[in-house]
Amino acid sequence: MTSEWDSHTALAAASDGGYVADLDAGWVVGGGVNGGYLIGLIGKAVADTVPAKPHPLSVSAYYLSASVPGPAQVRTRVLREGGTVATVAADLSQAGVARISALATYGDLSAMPADVHTTAVEPDLPPVEDCLPSSMAPEDFLRIAPLLGRFDMRLDPACAGWATGTPSGRGHIQAWFRLADGHDVDPLGLLMVCDALPPVTFDLGRPGWAPTLELTVHVRAVPAPGWLKVSHRTRNVAGGMFEEDCEVWDSSGRLVAQSRQLAMQPRG
Amino acid sequence: MTSEWDSHTALAAASDGGYVADLDAGWVVGGGVNGGYLIGLIGKAVADTVPAKPHPLSVSAYYLSASVPGPAQVRTRVLREGGTVATVAADLSQAGVARISALATYGDLSAMPADVHTTAVEPDLPPVEDCLPSSMAPEDFLRIAPLLGRFDMRLDPACAGWATGTPSGRGHIQAWFRLADGHDVDPLGLLMVCDALPPVTFDLGRPGWAPTLELTVHVRAVPAPGWLKVSHRTRNVAGGMFEEDCEVWDSSGRLVAQSRQLAMQPRG
Repeated sequence: MTSEWDSHTALAAASDGGYVADLDAGWVVGGGVNGGYLIGLIGKAVADTVPAKPHPLSVSAYYLSASVPGPAQVRTRVLREGGTVATVAADLSQAGVARISALATYGDLSAMPADVHTTAVEPDLPPVEDCLPSSMAPEDFLRIAPLLGRFDMRLDPACAGWATGTPSGRGHIQAWFRLADGHDVDPLGLLMVCDALPPVTFDLGRPGWAPTLELTVHVRAVPAPGWLKVSHRTRNVAGGMFEEDCEVWDSSGRLVAQSRQLAMQPRG
Repeated sequence: MTSEWDSHTALAAASDGGYVADLDAGWVVGGGVNGGYLIGLIGKAVADTVPAKPHPLSVSAYYLSASVPGPAQVRTRVLREGGTVATVAADLSQAGVARISALATYGDLSAMPADVHTTAVEPDLPPVEDCLPSSMAPEDFLRIAPLLGRFDMRLDPACAGWATGTPSGRGHIQAWFRLADGHDVDPLGLLMVCDALPPVTFDLGRPGWAPTLELTVHVRAVPAPGWLKVSHRTRNVAGGMFEEDCEVWDSSGRLVAQSRQLAMQPRG
């Protein structure tokens, strides 16, 4: 059975050599379409462009304007393809309006060396059943965030005080994560997972939309099936901006993706 | 007096609307030209392209092939210019061979809000005079790394055991940093500083060249004059790759730049 993720990121060939997609309204959050969904869609077009390099190693997306549900065009251009990696430029637009410009380096994670020397520490999360499902969010919020319907996300209560008006102030949110339809997340899906959680500024008592300027994801391994652990942190909220670092750990305890984004602080 | 940095990153207008530069041999390290110098050069071309947005907020560079001293061409293309930020695509090539492709978002740091809420901790370094000047490196090394002649870099002895065959194994290198000619580093210069220290893999006992796949720098503030503190860390050496996180702190104790790169592990 096709997963929701696969059908929502389906691409068709365009007559000009690019791709056409239909941005699904199920990924709307606030005033736009979720940036993680869009980078995942772009990532799929890149994978199709360099089939011998199926996996994203690094993708950097620069957000130019907010996307809306409906038709979108993706164009890709190979900058260099070597024996191990390929680098591709990709752009997403809607009716001629530029939405995202991206650069990506792809390779084959299953052909990379098997060494793992990680000093990063796996997020310490309570058992799934003791965490807070995002489906418990207030009706008002779910109405402007249909995005949440795509996920089965269980927030660590210690980092979710903002939901009841008592943010921790530490700038840290973490959660268990899987797709609502039960399909496992593949390496391309990890691009989306890195922008799935609420902005880490929620935990600083600053609710509201935090527009991403730039998001870079490093995919470091093919994730094992099952629940993922996702952690977001910020350490430098300054000059009207903040960075958000995300880690994704798989069910085998491996750090499978690391990302950082630069976003504007919410005005609210 | 023109600083060495300014003269080595001088750009001239090309007849096709782009820029020409002359990559100075003083920035060679090992088999190529230092990636930080190159991203700084590209950054200068971007600043010239959008003069109302003089400062880099985020620059992502994807390295396609090793540069060599001599003529280089930089082309820029404005993707979007709004009231606060502008996003530009830029490419550096030599005689038609693509070297680097980059995306950049620029703004005016002096016009950004003055708020600072940093939980990041300033590097704890011994006094400058108790640190190890990079000019003390062995003759053999200085010969293949003329780059070191550009800097006045003082390494924290606690993170420099690798220089005498006893790397700490923690994946951490930190140093005091300024330009050898005494000129202060400006926001564009910070792009270079984020790739100035030796690869953090030296501290893991893995000497050798670590080719950068991707480097993203966030410049967060205009640096105060004087010495900078620069810290490099890695936490995930796996799958033949590693990430390297860099922080640059200025003499006023402000975190002025954060960067992350994905690099291939040295083979040696």
